[in-house]
Amino acid sequence: MATQDAADRMEDRIRRIEDELEIRRLVSAYGPAVDSGDAAAVAALWTEDGVYDTDAALLEGRSGITAMVEGEHHQQLIANGAAHVLGAPHVVIDGDRAVVTQYSRVFRHTGDGFEPWRVAANRWELARTPEGWRATYRTVRLINGSEEARSLLRRAGTF
Amino acid sequence: MATQDAADRMEDRIRRIEDELEIRRLVSAYGPAVDSGDAAAVAALWTEDGVYDTDAALLEGRSGITAMVEGEHHQQLIANGAAHVLGAPHVVIDGDRAVVTQYSRVFRHTGDGFEPWRVAANRWELARTPEGWRATYRTVRLINGSEEARSLLRRAGTF
Amino acid sequence: MATQDAADRMEDRIRRIEDELEIRRLVSAYGPAVDSGDAAAVAALWTEDGVYDTDAALLEGRSGITAMVEGEHHQQLIANGAAHVLGAPHVVIDGDRAVVTQYSRVFRHTGDGFEPWRVAANRWELARTPEGWRATYRTVRLINGSEEARSLLRRAGTF
Repeated sequence: MATQDAADRMEDRIRRIEDELEIRRLVSAYGPAVDSGDAAAVAALWTEDGVYDTDAALLEGRSGITAMVEGEHHQQLIANGAAHVLGAPHVVIDGDRAVVTQYSRVFRHTGDGFEPWRVAANRWELARTPEGWRATYRTVRLINGSEEARSLLRRAGTF
Repeated sequence: MATQDAADRMEDRIRRIEDELEIRRLVSAYGPAVDSGDAAAVAALWTEDGVYDTDAALLEGRSGITAMVEGEHHQQLIANGAAHVLGAPHVVIDGDRAVVTQYSRVFRHTGDGFEPWRVAANRWELARTPEGWRATYRTVRLINGSEEARSLLRRAGTF
Repeated sequence: MATQDAADRMEDRIRRIEDELEIRRLVSAYGPAVDSGDAAAVAALWTEDGVYDTDAALLEGRSGITAMVEGEHHQQLIANGAAHVLGAPHVVIDGDRAVVTQYSRVFRHTGDGFEPWRVAANRWELARTPEGWRATYRTVRLINGSEEARSLLRRAGTF
């Protein structure tokens, strides 16, 4: 007969697995949201005061992220055809926090095809919140030979 | 001591997780099958009357999908070197149905390298069948600035 | 009341799921490790005598893999900006062994953008070891129209 202790241990393992699948769902929602211009859906991936730190800008809070998606630069980008593709995530969870490391590519539609406009290293720092897992800090650095991108990748799976 | 009710609830959660992993296995089998020209393996990802709806063609049923893979156009494409790469899937399950949203890219071998020939938004609608999870409808739209691709991406995770 | 047998069956299913997530973590660690030049982290993905078999070289054992990462060719590649991106893995587990099939792309930074320098088919053969899951043999073949790449893709999910 299974003891309550054994059942609790199994439930903990199930919860840990569900955490990882929820985190995978969160980060894979970014591309579809940003490429369809759904600013509210993009911002909702972060905590209220979450940060999106890229080579181009430091976006602070959901309001800062919303403004980027609604801004003329991004709207023009997606009107011409842009795909923000996030690769297979490397996910490490430690209790109520997690770190995801993955590559992103932005493909742009050109007259007769597509170009890999940007290729970057991504680090998501996430936290369990009452709303579910959310990003507290996402860093993106172009893989252009800079030490910054290599350093971000070297920290994969560490807090 | 664990009650039968508690055990049933855990088993439901395990089944839900297994569903997601099976769905991930299904969609990640598409590229290897289509790029190796294995028409039967490609068609088996869909239900018997499943639909594959792309910018180029509306393929109906396993027979329609088989004909595409065996056709001269596709055979020439893979003879020259082609990679149908599907990105990290966004998976949402609701009982016996599921929807997967992801990006696809077709890279073609050129004389001295590779080109990202097509970049597209993908929506898979799937159903649990006696054979396991299968695609009932897959829609692919090029990300060329058209509203169709953006609309597909905006529906990620909804039925 | 849940029987011990039922509990054991659930635990087996949980372990199988954890195996798959651990394998996904292993293969998704390759890119960040190799692009940051962390030779020890790359080599640790393989067993001590594991093999890395590419179009360019047959690397034998952790020492052979370490030498490749530390070598001038690879160091120059990452100094200029290189992203080894592995796509969504197709994972099949059979007890203490597993096979993963996926696409890889190497993007190189160019003066004003990025190019998809290499696009390849990947097959990882993995084993459960006292250290956890490790690669025993990884094969990479360019998708340049050769039968070798197509044959590798056709074997997805088979041992």
